[in-house]
Amino acid sequence: MAFSEFRPLNEKSLVEYIKSVPSLSSKLGSNLDELTIKEVGDGNLNFVYIVIGSSGSFVIKQALPYIRCIGESWPMTKERAYFEAIALKEEGRWCPGHVPEVYHFDRTMSLIGMRYLEPPHIILRKGLIAGVEYPLLAEHISDFISKTIFYTSLLYRTTTEHKSAVAEFCGNVELCRLTEQVVFSDPYKVSEYNHWTSPHLDLDAEAVRNDNALKAEIAELKSKFCERSQALIHGDLHTGSVMVTRESTQVIDPEFAFYGPIGFDVGAFLGNLILAYFAQDGHADAENDRKKYKEWILRTIEDTWNLFQKKFIALWDKHKDGPGEAYLPAIYNNPELQQLVQKKYFEELFHDSLGFGAAKMIRRIVGVAHVEDFESIADASKRASCERRALELAKLLLKERRKFQNIAEIVSAIRKVQ
Amino acid sequence: MAFSEFRPLNEKSLVEYIKSVPSLSSKLGSNLDELTIKEVGDGNLNFVYIVIGSSGSFVIKQALPYIRCIGESWPMTKERAYFEAIALKEEGRWCPGHVPEVYHFDRTMSLIGMRYLEPPHIILRKGLIAGVEYPLLAEHISDFISKTIFYTSLLYRTTTEHKSAVAEFCGNVELCRLTEQVVFSDPYKVSEYNHWTSPHLDLDAEAVRNDNALKAEIAELKSKFCERSQALIHGDLHTGSVMVTRESTQVIDPEFAFYGPIGFDVGAFLGNLILAYFAQDGHADAENDRKKYKEWILRTIEDTWNLFQKKFIALWDKHKDGPGEAYLPAIYNNPELQQLVQKKYFEELFHDSLGFGAAKMIRRIVGVAHVEDFESIADASKRASCERRALELAKLLLKERRKFQNIAEIVSAIRKVQ
Repeated sequence: MAFSEFRPLNEKSLVEYIKSVPSLSSKLGSNLDELTIKEVGDGNLNFVYIVIGSSGSFVIKQALPYIRCIGESWPMTKERAYFEAIALKEEGRWCPGHVPEVYHFDRTMSLIGMRYLEPPHIILRKGLIAGVEYPLLAEHISDFISKTIFYTSLLYRTTTEHKSAVAEFCGNVELCRLTEQVVFSDPYKVSEYNHWTSPHLDLDAEAVRNDNALKAEIAELKSKFCERSQALIHGDLHTGSVMVTRESTQVIDPEFAFYGPIGFDVGAFLGNLILAYFAQDGHADAENDRKKYKEWILRTIEDTWNLFQKKFIALWDKHKDGPGEAYLPAIYNNPELQQLVQKKYFEELFHDSLGFGAAKMIRRIVGVAHVEDFESIADASKRASCERRALELAKLLLKERRKFQNIAEIVSAIRKVQ
Repeated sequence: MAFSEFRPLNEKSLVEYIKSVPSLSSKLGSNLDELTIKEVGDGNLNFVYIVIGSSGSFVIKQALPYIRCIGESWPMTKERAYFEAIALKEEGRWCPGHVPEVYHFDRTMSLIGMRYLEPPHIILRKGLIAGVEYPLLAEHISDFISKTIFYTSLLYRTTTEHKSAVAEFCGNVELCRLTEQVVFSDPYKVSEYNHWTSPHLDLDAEAVRNDNALKAEIAELKSKFCERSQALIHGDLHTGSVMVTRESTQVIDPEFAFYGPIGFDVGAFLGNLILAYFAQDGHADAENDRKKYKEWILRTIEDTWNLFQKKFIALWDKHKDGPGEAYLPAIYNNPELQQLVQKKYFEELFHDSLGFGAAKMIRRIVGVAHVEDFESIADASKRASCERRALELAKLLLKERRKFQNIAEIVSAIRKVQ
């Protein structure tokens, strides 16, 4: 067989490959020699092909054994495709409406065939930069997070199922190590990979590296990231991992998935919305001052958290007599106690989410991989001003997160940053 | 071969077995037909044989596929012997002075051959009941805990080593589930296995089951137990898992070992010392009022914690430029910051230890498996009075643990219980 061992595909060999895989070729219609194939991998890690035939389409994503945007000098196991595939399937099991269906997975080739999210789907981050409102975004994302997290946590799972899944995803260690490095380490030390809007933010970057209180807090969060297996988290849930239309929200790219702290996913999404908010002044022009749009982002931040909490607690209540072993019904057997433990649970989760969200913001301003929200602001001093305000808020959140009681206070804090 | 599949050994088949295993038979001298063999398994789970020959000795421990003290009605994987064997080897690697050497492990037979801890070694719990002082106990146990914990944590290990070890010990899930049940669940609900000194403690047991604040706290600790993989913990470090003479301290029986929260081991040991303290009034008689001995126990509690903290921090300082990935030297690069993160680390660890210690105390008073410290007090009302005071302290520690700053305050709280 032609593909009995790993080889990177190109647009030509991809066609051969598709022909040899019925679950793919059967989707495309009869004439496999007239396919439209487009390489669209704008991510940092992989090759992504859109394949369109006469009667159907799909996406092929292939992982290569290094980080694409840096090259062969930064090796990275292609086994990440395996963890992405099993995470997509698990997420799809609990939230099929917001996860692309997997048609085919080939572990040898590190290759996933999945639903093509056809136009007008675009990456959410690009929509946020363009100033497009997505009225269902908070509803959909809160659905995705609450379901994928709840159903893979000990609130729904038995200890036996949980430990077996934790063990399996321990295998995705290289991707976890990458996160540890770029989120929890590099921004707090001198690193060849770090960069920032210079010279404007030189002192700000240095201040991050010299802030003992900040470094003590990031250590605590790093330890939670490495040691706390609460649920199957997406692991990279920023606004570049979400595709949207006005009616549809699809979460993609869970190659960083593992059993980790829930707040890491919630925080990633909220933190990236906050980055989008602070970038708006850089995108404002005579035609659109973006003031109304900034209000929509703030509302979306608030709604996302509140809906997530509401839905998660509704799932908890619904399944309180279910298989989950964390809170046995024979013990947590009265409504007052149920409310007490849920309040306690969400206090910690809220503060975790703020901490992780802040960490994700900081690393996008002074770390290796930046976000297009800021990068697309051509005027460096305008960009630096946006970034500095985001950085100030992130530092406040990371250090003082335990003082905040609810998401409305976070929105107030965002507004206060000048 | 005679032992190609599992079978429970008796004193006769054990001799056959030993003859077939050179690493065992070679220890005993020439005449294998004149061995002294004694079954001494006074634990709840396994068969333990002492084997003495003309020129040497060892212990054989065999796990059966159920819990010995309850019988075949409570099945329990015999694979626990595998986890005990690899835990003994790992602990022995870091702290050979306080862990019996493993001579032989047979996974098929769920059987470990290890050093026989010859007389006058006795189980520490029995020494505490007899009122014997062990002047080196705090020194030795703090050595064991600090080394086994530090060297298996991310303070010394890389993420890659850590995740691989975490995954392996996820396999010990049945023993983890047993702890979840007997420590974190059963005492807080009506369970056929629970018992207590009745009718004296009927209301106390009921109060535990109806204490919402207590049940909210135990949920938080259970979640840490299930989800937080900080280091390879012994998992059952009570005073029945320690053998002592005045000069020697040996930690045995790590079949509950897995990657869990550090405070669980520290708390188990301290909690069981506190139980021993409260039992003393039940052992006092005209000849010995046990007052001096109670002071020794309190001193040992205080010394154990303080020495553990001191030694753990010394290991951290010694290896701060080592392989551990939790606190990279390029970030935690100044003495003031190093002290700050160590203080933060130990604040959480102290409160975890108090919580887990309290949980271990409660379950020994109103749960399934009690301790000989109390059980050996024949007079039920005297026993109940000792148990009630221990229970009151444990409830205080579990609910108010975050208000305590150091171990001296715990000793004061113990003294205050009337």
